[in-house]
Amino acid sequence: MRTSLAASQDEVRRYNLAAVLQRLHIGGPVSRSELVALTGLNRSTVGALVTELAEQGLVVEGPGVAGTVGRPSLMVMPQPRSAIVLAFDFRVDRTVGAVVGLGGETISRVERSRQRSEFAPDLSVAQLIDMAHELLEEVPEETLWVGTGVGVPGIVNERTGVVSQAPNLGWIDVPFAQMVTDALRKEFGEVPATVTSNDADLGALAEHTRGAAVDSGNVIYISGEVGIGGGVVLGGALMTGAGGFGGEIGHMIVNPTGVECRCGSRGCWETVIGRGAVLSCIQDSKPVGDVQDVINAALAGDADVQERLAAVGRWLGIGLVNLINIFNPEVIVLGGHLGQLFSAVAEEVEEQIGHALRAPREQVRVALPALGEDSTLIGASESAFASLLSRPIEAVSESSTFVTSK
Amino acid sequence: MRTSLAASQDEVRRYNLAAVLQRLHIGGPVSRSELVALTGLNRSTVGALVTELAEQGLVVEGPGVAGTVGRPSLMVMPQPRSAIVLAFDFRVDRTVGAVVGLGGETISRVERSRQRSEFAPDLSVAQLIDMAHELLEEVPEETLWVGTGVGVPGIVNERTGVVSQAPNLGWIDVPFAQMVTDALRKEFGEVPATVTSNDADLGALAEHTRGAAVDSGNVIYISGEVGIGGGVVLGGALMTGAGGFGGEIGHMIVNPTGVECRCGSRGCWETVIGRGAVLSCIQDSKPVGDVQDVINAALAGDADVQERLAAVGRWLGIGLVNLINIFNPEVIVLGGHLGQLFSAVAEEVEEQIGHALRAPREQVRVALPALGEDSTLIGASESAFASLLSRPIEAVSESSTFVTSK
Repeated sequence: MRTSLAASQDEVRRYNLAAVLQRLHIGGPVSRSELVALTGLNRSTVGALVTELAEQGLVVEGPGVAGTVGRPSLMVMPQPRSAIVLAFDFRVDRTVGAVVGLGGETISRVERSRQRSEFAPDLSVAQLIDMAHELLEEVPEETLWVGTGVGVPGIVNERTGVVSQAPNLGWIDVPFAQMVTDALRKEFGEVPATVTSNDADLGALAEHTRGAAVDSGNVIYISGEVGIGGGVVLGGALMTGAGGFGGEIGHMIVNPTGVECRCGSRGCWETVIGRGAVLSCIQDSKPVGDVQDVINAALAGDADVQERLAAVGRWLGIGLVNLINIFNPEVIVLGGHLGQLFSAVAEEVEEQIGHALRAPREQVRVALPALGEDSTLIGASESAFASLLSRPIEAVSESSTFVTSK
Repeated sequence: MRTSLAASQDEVRRYNLAAVLQRLHIGGPVSRSELVALTGLNRSTVGALVTELAEQGLVVEGPGVAGTVGRPSLMVMPQPRSAIVLAFDFRVDRTVGAVVGLGGETISRVERSRQRSEFAPDLSVAQLIDMAHELLEEVPEETLWVGTGVGVPGIVNERTGVVSQAPNLGWIDVPFAQMVTDALRKEFGEVPATVTSNDADLGALAEHTRGAAVDSGNVIYISGEVGIGGGVVLGGALMTGAGGFGGEIGHMIVNPTGVECRCGSRGCWETVIGRGAVLSCIQDSKPVGDVQDVINAALAGDADVQERLAAVGRWLGIGLVNLINIFNPEVIVLGGHLGQLFSAVAEEVEEQIGHALRAPREQVRVALPALGEDSTLIGASESAFASLLSRPIEAVSESSTFVTSK
């Protein structure tokens, strides 16, 4: 129940500053006139807001790009190097890291593989710190470092940053966000907070914000790695469930008489469409090689591989039917190897999707990630930018976290 | 982006009137002092709001019930007979109807069975009209009739009231809300709007608002009738999906090598836990009789029935694992025959639930409906009250829909 209806002038100003900066961060350069039209604020208010953001160094004004008719108006542009975040996509077989600037530009990017012997949380943190050193080398001194975002293939309490369970890493109750912050502090002095999230949740947010599902409020992103994860956006917001653990669609049982899953259950969707399931189309023993090898073998005419791959495609379709009937989404984005798989066995998948209930089936499209392999990485950067974008002036003035050459 | 920050005095008054009436409708009688505490408004504002609602006849003030210490304060009470709705729970084998008064009191209730030969939409509407006559006989003349709510076991576009697909009734694209309104108008003259919704969605809202999940924001209600439906409340709001078709958990495929479902797919959850699956525990041929007969046979020691019923219990558990992993709910309410089934085979169900991921499993409880068999019926009445509760004064003054003795 609303108890106070009057917002103070100061609250209004902060709200509007955040709205303008968010618009610039997601949508890119825009003229003051367009900001007036977009915000419904008057010209002088927009002018004051832009000036305030410019004084903080977060935006600049300059001539717009060619192509517009008449006198080019001044464009307000986010300054990618005014504020940066560190982003990590922590996968089972490797880690991808990036420095991303305000406006979403990736300034630098590194990738490291990981062996099973390096799964322990402390070794994982050490690798991440090593990557942070390399990434921050590219960043000019005195740049504002506003956050660190990490995506992890597991069940994460996003408020506390504790990884409750990551079956494919063997982690249980690992306070990963705190471990990363502590290790970064030891190396770099005062550092901003670390946000840790489920990898597929970040993928869903990134594809919804900047990717294949920009105009859709109901989106499912499926991360296809060693395991299968899911991020579900409903009505424009991430579905979290009671404890932030929602969206574990990889552990939806579709084949109860099938093989045991790493989670302890049997016949989870992950067991029939995870990377191991695809690789085992070539050989029944320990899966090796690459998903593309399997697809190539099928394309080369190996009937046995074709048949097994088609079966994986049917399992993919069966799980998609469930998601369509359960969630009635507009877009389902197939991340990781699932996109390759879909392209190879689209016919089998589509045939299964034909069994979904007509009404939700007619509203859904299956898409590949517009952000390529970086959906989770970009989602992690967005999670790290959130505090700056919601309180731009406070985040700049309260913070003393500058990237240094230490 | 917020364009107007100042709410007019009139908007504030209407907002507060609605808030007070909603509180009375759901929570029952309350003193002015408690309203002051609950709303954060001052005493004179609360007094003016109560007076305005009393002038419309929606509430009265009177002495509170005994049991309080000191001088009993005046209680503000909703007036059940000041405004009523018609509510119908339209099931495959029967229809339940009720007149419900402001505050949620059921004033009268009737139930009619339905044969397969009476599934046609026009025959269904005729039955409903017949029941409306009987129900409204109990209502005093000049009572305000503010809406009609109908729950249907099918996929419903809740904005248009069109039943897109109801596999167990054989309906496709039936504009049921409009048909009901037209038929009511023919009988009763000017009538309020009819709201048509999925039966399980209404069950979920009712159990969340007045039932087994009052304190939980993430709730799944499973309707167990001939078919299996689902209503999902997330963060306190009903999950609808892109077109209002979300929540069809009965058509989640769990047994792809199983029998064909009425929806055209194979191995839907409905095929292994629907009423037919339970009844077939007694005989493999056409299911007849009652779910309780099956449970009684198992209790009486029929080993064959016990074994088959245990298998149904395992299927119930497998689907619940999926819902726990996908949604991370706090409460799952088992409606219809699923409650009886659960009580009979709790051990098998719990054993399966043990395979859900630990974090969401630790947060969930499985419950029986606190509203008994009337979850959907009460949800339908709430859907019909929504317009009055959101705009009480306008709804009273603009409406000329009084129950008459016609």
